[in-house]
Amino acid sequence: MKQSFAQRLRTRQQSCRSVLCVGLDPDPQRLPDVLRRTQPLAEALLTFNRAIIEATHASACAFKLNLAFFEALGREGWRVLEETLAALPEEVLVIADAKRGDIGNSARFYAASAFDHLGCDACTVAPYMGRDAVSPFLQYPGKAAFVLGRTSNPGAADFQDLDCEGEKLYLRVARYVAAWAADAPGEAGLVVGATDLAALRAIRATCPDLPFLIPGVGAQGGDARGVMEAAATAEGLVLVNSSRQILYASSGLDFAEAAAREAENLRGMLEAAR
Amino acid sequence: MKQSFAQRLRTRQQSCRSVLCVGLDPDPQRLPDVLRRTQPLAEALLTFNRAIIEATHASACAFKLNLAFFEALGREGWRVLEETLAALPEEVLVIADAKRGDIGNSARFYAASAFDHLGCDACTVAPYMGRDAVSPFLQYPGKAAFVLGRTSNPGAADFQDLDCEGEKLYLRVARYVAAWAADAPGEAGLVVGATDLAALRAIRATCPDLPFLIPGVGAQGGDARGVMEAAATAEGLVLVNSSRQILYASSGLDFAEAAAREAENLRGMLEAAR
Repeated sequence: MKQSFAQRLRTRQQSCRSVLCVGLDPDPQRLPDVLRRTQPLAEALLTFNRAIIEATHASACAFKLNLAFFEALGREGWRVLEETLAALPEEVLVIADAKRGDIGNSARFYAASAFDHLGCDACTVAPYMGRDAVSPFLQYPGKAAFVLGRTSNPGAADFQDLDCEGEKLYLRVARYVAAWAADAPGEAGLVVGATDLAALRAIRATCPDLPFLIPGVGAQGGDARGVMEAAATAEGLVLVNSSRQILYASSGLDFAEAAAREAENLRGMLEAAR
Repeated sequence: MKQSFAQRLRTRQQSCRSVLCVGLDPDPQRLPDVLRRTQPLAEALLTFNRAIIEATHASACAFKLNLAFFEALGREGWRVLEETLAALPEEVLVIADAKRGDIGNSARFYAASAFDHLGCDACTVAPYMGRDAVSPFLQYPGKAAFVLGRTSNPGAADFQDLDCEGEKLYLRVARYVAAWAADAPGEAGLVVGATDLAALRAIRATCPDLPFLIPGVGAQGGDARGVMEAAATAEGLVLVNSSRQILYASSGLDFAEAAAREAENLRGMLEAAR
């Protein structure tokens, strides 16, 4: 019997004592000079990703790969994506941050891309098109769809916070996603930003046992405690994502060491806040 | 001075007397046997796409490429995508059906992928994350972001039809998108399904001059007239998309001829309904 995504995540979080997810958002304009000067862009990105993985994986329960940064380079970017995935250690969980949202065959092909072709453990999914956009990502035993709930950006307020027939849209989305996952072979989680603790609490109350992928925790750790208090429970796992703060901790020769230090700091801060 | 997307679309629609957009959703399982038996899958897909383009471009004002079908093959799929784009005649407009929706740098990279790297004229975009998810696609003069408004699938009712503080969510989205585009160097359009004529009319009333990309018109033509009456106006252009009905009109040796016939039939039916 295949282990569930949640079981694997729990095991990994216990063994590495970390809820930190390292976000691989490799921005060509922010690569360390030493990498950019000596090789073609695609190779520089790959070297960077491998160095970051090597430096940070002991502090991370998971890695999240943001597909936008790879896709911008076309087929070369997809090669870098595939080779970056090959460099990830077996024991970390891997999330394709794709935010895909389409229906029917299109959704099935996107799910096949994330889970079959790329072999990721989870994928982020957009809810606007409704059940038929999410459901194809819930058909994979042992894999999870993290659906956008309440995101951390300013524009989240445009639609997600609207009062929709008695509840905020993000709560309606969270409630529906939990119901859809209850009937499916695969699992669901939710993307919930760290910037709105009230939303985080409300969604946790609505979905006590879904894992949350939480971007937006800052360097100061002030809100790390708030986030952990609001969202991390015995049943409800959290993955706290940090990308730029780790990746670009230094632009010098010591970029990998600096990333390792930053990841370990964040890991410790989050553990202390549990 | 660069022509606007809307001007180019209008010119093309007048010269080919067509509002038809051919959707390239190349499904490996539905390729004609003759193509699948004789070459590797990626080559078969490319041969298929080229044959469909050759057979249908005279009847089409635009082509829409559904990225899911390419992405499922990873880097090989992106090669097929890039080579398919190279096979499209200069005069047709090209839409990347990507339904991307992310923020900040991620959104900028997705926009760069669609507009700079792939060179498409328009891209479909998901609105759930709000203004910061849409705005990066509105920064390209002469290019357009088609934002999901009211889609044609059953799940559209889950969230899009909700009453949000006095208006349906899809109308709120349409209204905001029109306002965001008014301030931007690029242009916006909306994706509005053919299956709900009342929604189509309501969105046209709210956004009289945005182009609509309309999927879901059936073979019968019964609703072609309804769609054109509801959405096509002097200021408001429409693009009516058809994918499977054209691509898989025949699975035999005559697949390209059958696709040409089907595209020309649809073109004529839509012109008659204007």
